[in-house]
Amino acid sequence: MAPLARNVLVTGSNRGIGLELVRQLVEGPDPPEHIFATYRDLDGARGKALQELAAKYPPVRLIQLDAVSLASVRAAVKEVDSQLNGKGLNLLINNAAVNSYATLQSVQPEEMISVFTTNVVGPIQVAKEFLPLLKRAAEEAGKEGLSCSKAAIINMSTKVGSIELCFQVLEIPMYPYRASKAALNMVTRCLAAELKDAGILCTAIHPGWVKTDMGTEKAPLTVECSVQGILSVLAGLSQATTGVFLDWEGKSLPW
Amino acid sequence: MAPLARNVLVTGSNRGIGLELVRQLVEGPDPPEHIFATYRDLDGARGKALQELAAKYPPVRLIQLDAVSLASVRAAVKEVDSQLNGKGLNLLINNAAVNSYATLQSVQPEEMISVFTTNVVGPIQVAKEFLPLLKRAAEEAGKEGLSCSKAAIINMSTKVGSIELCFQVLEIPMYPYRASKAALNMVTRCLAAELKDAGILCTAIHPGWVKTDMGTEKAPLTVECSVQGILSVLAGLSQATTGVFLDWEGKSLPW
Ligand SMILES: NC(=O)c1ccc[n+]([C@@H]2O[C@H](COP(=O)([O-])OP(=O)(O)OC[C@H]3O[C@@H](n4cnc5c(N)ncnc54)[C@H](OP(=O)(O)O)[C@@H]3O)[C@@H](O)[C@H]2O)c1
Ligand SMILES: NC(=O)c1ccc[n+]([C@@H]2O[C@H](COP(=O)([O-])OP(=O)(O)OC[C@H]3O[C@@H](n4cnc5c(N)ncnc54)[C@H](OP(=O)(O)O)[C@@H]3O)[C@@H](O)[C@H]2O)c1
Repeated sequence: MAPLARNVLVTGSNRGIGLELVRQLVEGPDPPEHIFATYRDLDGARGKALQELAAKYPPVRLIQLDAVSLASVRAAVKEVDSQLNGKGLNLLINNAAVNSYATLQSVQPEEMISVFTTNVVGPIQVAKEFLPLLKRAAEEAGKEGLSCSKAAIINMSTKVGSIELCFQVLEIPMYPYRASKAALNMVTRCLAAELKDAGILCTAIHPGWVKTDMGTEKAPLTVECSVQGILSVLAGLSQATTGVFLDWEGKSLPW
Repeated sequence: MAPLARNVLVTGSNRGIGLELVRQLVEGPDPPEHIFATYRDLDGARGKALQELAAKYPPVRLIQLDAVSLASVRAAVKEVDSQLNGKGLNLLINNAAVNSYATLQSVQPEEMISVFTTNVVGPIQVAKEFLPLLKRAAEEAGKEGLSCSKAAIINMSTKVGSIELCFQVLEIPMYPYRASKAALNMVTRCLAAELKDAGILCTAIHPGWVKTDMGTEKAPLTVECSVQGILSVLAGLSQATTGVFLDWEGKSLPW
């Protein structure tokens, strides 16, 4: 079996879904050559599991990356570029995000902007700065079509960010988070349209409601189960599924 | 014929679609009691037409309102409240917005945030601060159901902000504008869900591609024609059309 992608980068991989993506990628039957596991801060308990993974498996490379800091993203690109040694980056997973609850009464402008900055401006900035490495991967693939093994950007979205489904999943008011993820879905579509001709796929994935710090213990899905599903969905993506919105089981979601 | 709504407020009404909304509302057969025509700045040519309208028609009340400034929005609420003299505000039209073009290569984080602030945080802030006056209107209506004559928030959206239609209308890359309007559509849905029980309708309207400073001279639709359509769509809104996305002819658009 060929690896899902030769060189992969995951943002926010020190915990939650990002950490489990790195773990399953490296422990799978055919691991990538490099898995750039990015984090903001490895101090304390939050960095322990990722550090252990990197110590055990040479493909896991720890890279500092704060998605909202252009300087940090650029430093990460430089480091990844040097480690790739002339090869391209095949798969970029924009996983990092923050959640935020607020009703109309409690919502604050600063919170709207800060969540938008992390969840939308961050992924755009990361995509923009890593674009040369993604393009290099698409060129070196030297084949038609789109796939995660060639060159792809995956944006971690959420069903809660589906405008269509909003009325069905409204139990919890979360203006900042919902607005940011709807905007991220739009960005996913724009990227898919803009980057198609460059051979780069772009798809939005809903991981399910998952037991992580963000998803809380109340979530029905384990992180293992969600990530298993996500990785098998990613393996099946093609030109037919660029610019779409799929859940961890591969089911299509409305925008 | 009853007026569309007794008391109306329009943001960004010194030019473009906002100005024409005020004009047609006041020149119609049954004008509102008050039309709060808000502007940021009336100096120079940009304020002339609105000032003439206000001089000619007493229902037109000029109110300064910069949607991104909380102090300005609060001062506007205070002024409107005092002019309403105990009555409620029936119809709030969040019309003010800015456009912005950018490809992935050219997009700047500051531009993403600034457009989001004007086009999303602005309307939320305006809705939040005027909410007590809208609730008052809903209560004094003393009837079931939802309508613009009772209490409503209309968010001016755009087809270009439809994530579903994005691939069809992608000629021009505009990440900041598209992302902001998709987020505004999500906010429209959230408002509709949250405010339904308070008797307040909330709907997103696409005015068409209109000859204004924003739409440019290339646009096929005159501002007169667009606003005629919009006003007749608004008159027909009800509980069945809260939380939806309609164009100026009343046709439903996908999110
Ligand atoms: N869990 C769910 O039920 C669920 C449901 C739907 C969608 N999602 C989406 O799935 C993705 C992962 O969620 P999760 O549950 O794993 O969340 P999580 O447990 O809260 O972890 C979030 C990760 O993002 C990182 N992060 C936050 N801001 C960052 C920034 N500016 N730069 C770099 N990294 C940053 C965090 O780093 P620090 O440790 O430094 O804070 C952390 O590694 C998110 O996009 C989320 O919206 C999750
Ligand atoms: N024209 C089109 O083809 C088209 C198509 C789809 C959707 N739309 C939407 O329709 C609405 C009106 O568009 P338009 O064509 O009339 O635009 P426009 O001619 O550019 O006018 C924009 C208006 O918004 C005001 N504004 C901008 N930022 C503001 C702020 N922070 N606070 C208060 N007012 C602010 C402007 O005031 P200043 O004069 O002070 O700048 C101006 O009055 C917008 O929401 C737009 O997105 C237009």
